[in-house]
Amino acid sequence: MAKEITSRDQDYSQWYVDVVQKANMADYSAVRGCMVIKPNGYAVWENMQQQLDRMFKETGHVNAYFPLFIPKSFLSREAAHVEGFAKECAVITHHRLKNAPDGSGVIVDPEAKLEEELIVRPTSETIIWDTYRTWINSYRDLPLLINQWANVVRWEMRTRLFLRTAEFLWQEGHTAHATKEEAEAEARTMLDVYAKFAEEWMAMPVIKGVKTANERFAGAVETYCIEALMQDGKALQAGTSHFLGQNFAKAFDVKFLNENNEQEYVWATSWGVSTRLIGALIMTHSDDEGLVLPPKLAPLQVIIVPIPKPAPEINEAAEKVMKALREKGISVKYDLDDKKRPGFKFAEHEMHGVPVRLAIGARDLAEGRVEVARRDTKEKTSQPFEGIAKYIADLLVDIQSNLFNRAAAYRTAHTTRVNNLDDFNAALDNQRGFVSAHWDGTTETELKLKDLTKATIRCIPLDNEQEDGACVLTGKPSRQRVLFARAY
Amino acid sequence: MAKEITSRDQDYSQWYVDVVQKANMADYSAVRGCMVIKPNGYAVWENMQQQLDRMFKETGHVNAYFPLFIPKSFLSREAAHVEGFAKECAVITHHRLKNAPDGSGVIVDPEAKLEEELIVRPTSETIIWDTYRTWINSYRDLPLLINQWANVVRWEMRTRLFLRTAEFLWQEGHTAHATKEEAEAEARTMLDVYAKFAEEWMAMPVIKGVKTANERFAGAVETYCIEALMQDGKALQAGTSHFLGQNFAKAFDVKFLNENNEQEYVWATSWGVSTRLIGALIMTHSDDEGLVLPPKLAPLQVIIVPIPKPAPEINEAAEKVMKALREKGISVKYDLDDKKRPGFKFAEHEMHGVPVRLAIGARDLAEGRVEVARRDTKEKTSQPFEGIAKYIADLLVDIQSNLFNRAAAYRTAHTTRVNNLDDFNAALDNQRGFVSAHWDGTTETELKLKDLTKATIRCIPLDNEQEDGACVLTGKPSRQRVLFARAY
Repeated sequence: MAKEITSRDQDYSQWYVDVVQKANMADYSAVRGCMVIKPNGYAVWENMQQQLDRMFKETGHVNAYFPLFIPKSFLSREAAHVEGFAKECAVITHHRLKNAPDGSGVIVDPEAKLEEELIVRPTSETIIWDTYRTWINSYRDLPLLINQWANVVRWEMRTRLFLRTAEFLWQEGHTAHATKEEAEAEARTMLDVYAKFAEEWMAMPVIKGVKTANERFAGAVETYCIEALMQDGKALQAGTSHFLGQNFAKAFDVKFLNENNEQEYVWATSWGVSTRLIGALIMTHSDDEGLVLPPKLAPLQVIIVPIPKPAPEINEAAEKVMKALREKGISVKYDLDDKKRPGFKFAEHEMHGVPVRLAIGARDLAEGRVEVARRDTKEKTSQPFEGIAKYIADLLVDIQSNLFNRAAAYRTAHTTRVNNLDDFNAALDNQRGFVSAHWDGTTETELKLKDLTKATIRCIPLDNEQEDGACVLTGKPSRQRVLFARAY
Repeated sequence: MAKEITSRDQDYSQWYVDVVQKANMADYSAVRGCMVIKPNGYAVWENMQQQLDRMFKETGHVNAYFPLFIPKSFLSREAAHVEGFAKECAVITHHRLKNAPDGSGVIVDPEAKLEEELIVRPTSETIIWDTYRTWINSYRDLPLLINQWANVVRWEMRTRLFLRTAEFLWQEGHTAHATKEEAEAEARTMLDVYAKFAEEWMAMPVIKGVKTANERFAGAVETYCIEALMQDGKALQAGTSHFLGQNFAKAFDVKFLNENNEQEYVWATSWGVSTRLIGALIMTHSDDEGLVLPPKLAPLQVIIVPIPKPAPEINEAAEKVMKALREKGISVKYDLDDKKRPGFKFAEHEMHGVPVRLAIGARDLAEGRVEVARRDTKEKTSQPFEGIAKYIADLLVDIQSNLFNRAAAYRTAHTTRVNNLDDFNAALDNQRGFVSAHWDGTTETELKLKDLTKATIRCIPLDNEQEDGACVLTGKPSRQRVLFARAY
């Protein structure tokens, strides 16, 4: 089974598609650019949702739901937004089908043309701020801390499962505040929530930073992001949080009466992460045998395989272990299938990324021992049957932190400081990963460097140390390094 | 505040809209027929989702996600399905907008016309069965027990918040089986899950039944349903579960190799409930003071109001009660707002349907007592402070069952057995509610009765007693009564 996967060295892109498909995470659909998220993939998304939703609620947010459709004219209201989003999108022009006169099927009824076309939401700032106008009157109505779990559509030309699809699932937070300071703090708070989720749950180290003007969200004053590094040395933007200033409040005329009884425009943020995180998770940890999942997000944490097949004393031991593990809140299954050999099962569960495998055989059992295999290092050890639940609980914690440390070490090894263009190019081609370099701060230089190297500025790290230097391209003075990379 | 609601007697429809809006459950949006589900409404939906999802998983189902869009031609594949669903729907014809040459905004780019139009899913049988073809090869791949939480769109002409909107949220289960018997059993199992959820969680009594051929889902062999009765005597279909036979398997060519090594078409079911349940919940229990929620689904179960306003000893007592309630898993808040008077707060929390209100004043407290008001009966009692958490836990159970019993008594009082057309009409106009009558079993008679009385056959109850009789319209022989009602 594992042999069906292309190795990472051979073809990283194909390896990724192989893992996604063979681990039954997702697949292409009959609709161009749209994916089917299969049960194994969706179960990971459910675990992500649960934890993120908890973190959003702990920071004072509530959920709501806004319409899927946006009147075309709404997109034009905010000047930058329309440039960013009124391009490739799904346009609804009619609201009825009718039988074809020639009996060949159904056709669009020309009489059911909409007066104004509707767009399937690519993001919901416009429809939400149009709604907020009726919800916000006074400072007592603020802040409004609302999140939405939804599907969105962007008509992407080149799609890749999870990473870039026409339709994807996400959450989008949209908050309204009485002051600039409060909105700015909110955007930073949510960036911290995303970073914490990425590092503590996905075991994926991220760099918190701010985007350059050129890479900013269409309509934002400032875009914060978390950036991760994949195993092929390419960066991936894993989440963004935007301080929107009063741009959308002005575009949709959302004012409030402040404590001094004056009308003022409302301050806004928006922030989101999507099913793209599943792609990031796969590319951060998985290997040539298939999926590797951090225990905290794995739908199934432990699999027990009877050696060579189910038998009364083995089943009994498995039941005992399952009971003890479930009491500790650990998910576990016993692979009872008697048509498959142990070796086949091992490969299958490795492919699916189950963090820990227990093999229980009669001989081991007689000696009071079981075999424990961890998915991350593929290390196997023989452990005493007594106290095995405690051992596994600790092992899951260890796997979680090992995955994080491994990814962090990779990132460290693939972050290079350079001071001139030759080293810049060499670093991108040889070490790959992040390149930390001085930049003169202009969009012109940023775009030229992108043209020359295919690398973009991923972010200006928030905890950046200030250091005088010269731009790698123009030699102009710079006061801090920024992070470049080729990116997804 | 409560005075802003129209009473049920005065205008039931307006009362409903008032409750939905004043309790901040939902509101109309800028997009025709689409609603905004506000945080209070969405919190109820989250509670419903959580419990239903648990019940689906306990019965062996997993979640997945399929595309929002369906190629137009897919709808034509199943003959009955196309008649039912290829009518009023959102049709995507283009995939790009561009700037208008005159600078007036954005227009549809005529060069970005899709080769085949896409339909926003009104239901997903077609796209899912097109996918199942690639997932199912042998009996070992069956059963496939999959559910999806999603938004769907049906271009309804007359919309009502929660009850009938162009876009709504729902879950749709789509299962595939090797035998007819197994698929039929699945459809019945899910009907039971829905009935259990409606009765035990929503406190809403339902009748389990089967639809007549005329009311069947487009593409189903048999449609099972749960029917509830609203306070205005109109029936509401609260959930459906369909046995689809091999109709979709044949339309999408989904075959499997059975144990005898023969190719056979797969058997199917589908089943769904939607945000319509929130409308049903509101109309079953609420009153002229606003929302009434069953404790098991109420986002907030207990509110504590200080009398007349916060004070150190009152705050301390409230903290104690909150701690004790939270330990029992009861959600509770302390209304600290010192700008509102108690009477205003009482009306506000009644409007929002909080099941239990505690009023804590210094004088009561000195006597070791607090005032407890239950939302369902509006009864107030003075209770000892000692042991108040236990008292409230029991009270919540009592409220839950009282709401169910009250609704069940209403239904009993509004179900009339009639034996001729005059009594049939009289019952619909006077007693309202369900009318139990003999029917000759033909669609012709069913449609004539609908024309004459505006009542439809809600269902043939599953536990129907067999009884010889004569059709109320034609006098032809009948062997069982069916349930008629005017319906939402």
